[in-house]
Amino acid sequence: MPLEPSRTVAELRELRELTGDAEGAQRVCWTDTWARARAWMREKLGELPVEVEIDEAGNQWATLRGGSERAVLIGGHIDSVPNGGWLDGALNVLAGLEVLRRLAGEGTPPVSVRLVDWADEEGARFGRSLLGSSACSGTMADQEHLRTLTDRDGIALPDALVEHGVELDRMLEAGRQLDSAAAYLELHIEQGPVLESLGLPLGAVLGTFGVERHRIVFRGQAAHAGSTPMEQRRDALAGAARLELELREIARRAGGGAVCTMGGVVTKPGIATSVVEEATCLLDQRHLDAGTLATMLGEARAASERFAVEEGLEVEWEPIWGIQPILFDETLFGFCDDAIREVVGASHRLSSGPLHDAAETARAGVPTVMMFAQSLRGLSHTKAEDTRPEHIELSVRALDRLADRAIAWVAGGGGRSST
Amino acid sequence: MPLEPSRTVAELRELRELTGDAEGAQRVCWTDTWARARAWMREKLGELPVEVEIDEAGNQWATLRGGSERAVLIGGHIDSVPNGGWLDGALNVLAGLEVLRRLAGEGTPPVSVRLVDWADEEGARFGRSLLGSSACSGTMADQEHLRTLTDRDGIALPDALVEHGVELDRMLEAGRQLDSAAAYLELHIEQGPVLESLGLPLGAVLGTFGVERHRIVFRGQAAHAGSTPMEQRRDALAGAARLELELREIARRAGGGAVCTMGGVVTKPGIATSVVEEATCLLDQRHLDAGTLATMLGEARAASERFAVEEGLEVEWEPIWGIQPILFDETLFGFCDDAIREVVGASHRLSSGPLHDAAETARAGVPTVMMFAQSLRGLSHTKAEDTRPEHIELSVRALDRLADRAIAWVAGGGGRSST
Repeated sequence: MPLEPSRTVAELRELRELTGDAEGAQRVCWTDTWARARAWMREKLGELPVEVEIDEAGNQWATLRGGSERAVLIGGHIDSVPNGGWLDGALNVLAGLEVLRRLAGEGTPPVSVRLVDWADEEGARFGRSLLGSSACSGTMADQEHLRTLTDRDGIALPDALVEHGVELDRMLEAGRQLDSAAAYLELHIEQGPVLESLGLPLGAVLGTFGVERHRIVFRGQAAHAGSTPMEQRRDALAGAARLELELREIARRAGGGAVCTMGGVVTKPGIATSVVEEATCLLDQRHLDAGTLATMLGEARAASERFAVEEGLEVEWEPIWGIQPILFDETLFGFCDDAIREVVGASHRLSSGPLHDAAETARAGVPTVMMFAQSLRGLSHTKAEDTRPEHIELSVRALDRLADRAIAWVAGGGGRSST
Repeated sequence: MPLEPSRTVAELRELRELTGDAEGAQRVCWTDTWARARAWMREKLGELPVEVEIDEAGNQWATLRGGSERAVLIGGHIDSVPNGGWLDGALNVLAGLEVLRRLAGEGTPPVSVRLVDWADEEGARFGRSLLGSSACSGTMADQEHLRTLTDRDGIALPDALVEHGVELDRMLEAGRQLDSAAAYLELHIEQGPVLESLGLPLGAVLGTFGVERHRIVFRGQAAHAGSTPMEQRRDALAGAARLELELREIARRAGGGAVCTMGGVVTKPGIATSVVEEATCLLDQRHLDAGTLATMLGEARAASERFAVEEGLEVEWEPIWGIQPILFDETLFGFCDDAIREVVGASHRLSSGPLHDAAETARAGVPTVMMFAQSLRGLSHTKAEDTRPEHIELSVRALDRLADRAIAWVAGGGGRSST
C-alpha cells in the first residue's frame, strides 16, 4: 500500500490514548503498560508479511525478508520515561512501521528490511539507558553491576526482566541480530531547539556528542558574613561563579555547536551569615570532535585552577562519566541529507547532544545515521513535548526516501558485509 | 585589691574546665551547664561587697553601690553556642568581674557600677538571640512568636524558661533595670580578622552594622545540556554567578568596611544534564551608615534586574530580615579609644558585623560603647576560637581604664539621666 504519513500521526495518537494519562506517556520499560504498547504494536505488524520475534535482550524485531539476508535496520524504542512525551522513541517505531507497509506493498525488496523496537532505551526504571541496544552491540560490560540495580520499590533488575522473558545472563546472545545488519537508520525528535529556531522541519545528524562530565569542588574558608572584610575572604562561591561564566567563553571559542553546562552548585554551609566554604559544581561538556572536547576540558580545568589561585581556594576535580564522540556513516549521512532536501527543500546538519540507540549500532560497526524532526520549544521527557503533525508527516516521507536509498546502496554491495 | 588581668585568663580557663568538653564550650542558655556556670559566677561574686539578683528576664546583675544610684553598666553573657569557644561572651563577664574587684577594693565609687550577665544572647537553643537584653531594652515585641518556639526535642521556650525561674509574660518587667543606667560598656572578642591583620590587640567599636538580608530567586528555563545551544539558553545560574561577582564591586564602591555576601545558592533541577532553571541566592549586606546600606541594596537590586534582562531570566526578591545600623555614643567611644591608646599605644576604629547586647542598650537610649579584643584567624562559634593570653590581659586593663573614665563622666553629670 502507498505511504500514508497521516496514518503515523493517527497511530501515535492511538498509542497515547492506550498508554498515556493526564501526566503524559507511561510506557516505562519492563512494566505492564510497556508490554501493552508492544502487544498493540504486534497487532499492527500482524497485518504485514513480516516475521516478529523478541530477542534475548528483549528487543522486538519485525523482519520483511528480501532478496538477500543482508538487512537495512530501522530502529526506535516504544518505551518512555514516566510522564513522558508522545513522540520520543515512538515516532521512530511508527514511522518505521509505515515504511515497512509501503515496502511490503511493493513486493519483496532486494535486501531484508528489519524494524527494531529496542528494549529499555530510557533506563527510566533502573537508571541504565540503552540496555537492549548495548546488549546487541556487545558494549554491555556491566552485567555484575546490572545485577545489583533495584527500582524504587526494591525490585531487582534481573527479576523485573525475567517477568518479561529476559534473562540477564543471556542478553549478549542478542548480538547475533546484528550479524546481517548492513545499515541502520533512526528517526528521532530533536529534543532541542535548533531546528525550530531555523524554521526547518528536519535535519541530518552528523553523530552524537562526546561527553565529559565532572564534579568540581572549590574549597575556601567559612567566615562570618558580618565581620570578615571583603579582601580577607576565601569565598568558594566566587570560584564557582567565575567558572560558570568562563564556560560560556570556552564553548564560544570551541565552536562547532560546543555546549558547556554547570548543571548545579551545592554550597556549604549555605547560610546567609557565612562566606561559602565549599562549592561543588557539576560540569557537562559536549562536542562532536574528540580533540576539541579535550581542549574544552583542558581549558575548564586550567580556568578553575587559575580562579582557585586568584581567590585563595583549593580546587579538586572528580570524573563522573564520559563517552567519546560517535560519528555517523558519511554515505548514509549524505543519503539522509538528500532525502530531507527532496522532501522539504532544505536540510540542516546538526549533532545530537543526547545519546541514542544509534550510538550503539555505530559502535558495533554498523553504518548508521539519524534524522531529527523539529521539537517545539526543544522540550522532551515531559508531556509538553510536541512536534507539528505536518512535520511528523514530513519526517515519515523523508525516512521513507532515506530507506529506499539505503536499500539500493546495500543491494549494490554497500554497507557492512555480514559478519 | 589591685587589678590582676592574669586572674581573668585563669578564671576563663577554670570556666572552660567546668563547662566545656572535647568539642568546646557547652554553656547553652537554659541548660544545666549554663546554670552551673552562673552558680560558679555567683560564688566569685560572693567574695565581693556586691548585691546579686536575677531579673524577670533571667539576666544576672551584680551591683556595687556607689555614691549615686546612677550606674555605669558593664555587660557580657556567660551563655555560649553548642561546641562554642571559651571567650565569646565569657571574656566580658570575667573582665567585668576583675574591674569590680579593683573598684570594690578602693572603697565606694562615686556612682554605682553594675555587672550584667545577659540571658540567652546566643539564642542557640530556640533560635532567638539577644533575648534577655531585648526584654530589658523593651524591643522584645515578639512574645506571641516566642511562645511558639521549640527546641530540637520539642520542648517549648516558655517551659524551658520556667525551669530557670523566668516567666515569658513577665520578662519585660526587667526593663526597670535600665532606669538608673547612665552608660553601658561591653568588651568582646572581635570574631573577625581585622585586628589580627593589623597586628593590633584592641579596637574601639563605632557601632553595629545595619543588615539587609534577602532571598533572590532567578528563574530561567530547564533545558537539555546536550541539545540546547549556548545562545538559546536561559540559565538561571548565570544570573546568580554574575550577581555573586558584582557584590564585590558594590562593596568596594560603598567603602567604609562594607560587606556583601552571597551565603548560598540552591539550584534546580541541579543535575548535570540540565541547564539550571532556578537559582535561589541568599544575600547579606552590612554597613554602619544607613544611607550607604540603602545604596548598596539598591545597586544589588538593579544589578540583579539588569542580569535578568541580559540573560532572559525573571528575578524576584524576598526580604528575610533587616536591622538599622546602631551607632555607639561619641563620648564613650572617645573614652574607649583613649583607654586603648593608654594601655596598648595604638588603637583602631572598627565596626561590628555581628550584633551584641550592646545594640539593645543603645536602642534603649543608654550611651553605649564596645571594645574589641583581637581574635585569632577571625574564628568564633567554634572550639578553635582563640585570643592570645597577653591580649586578654591587655583587654582587661583597657576595660578598667574605660570604666574609670565612664565613672568620672557619669559622676560629673554625663551619661543618661535616670528615667
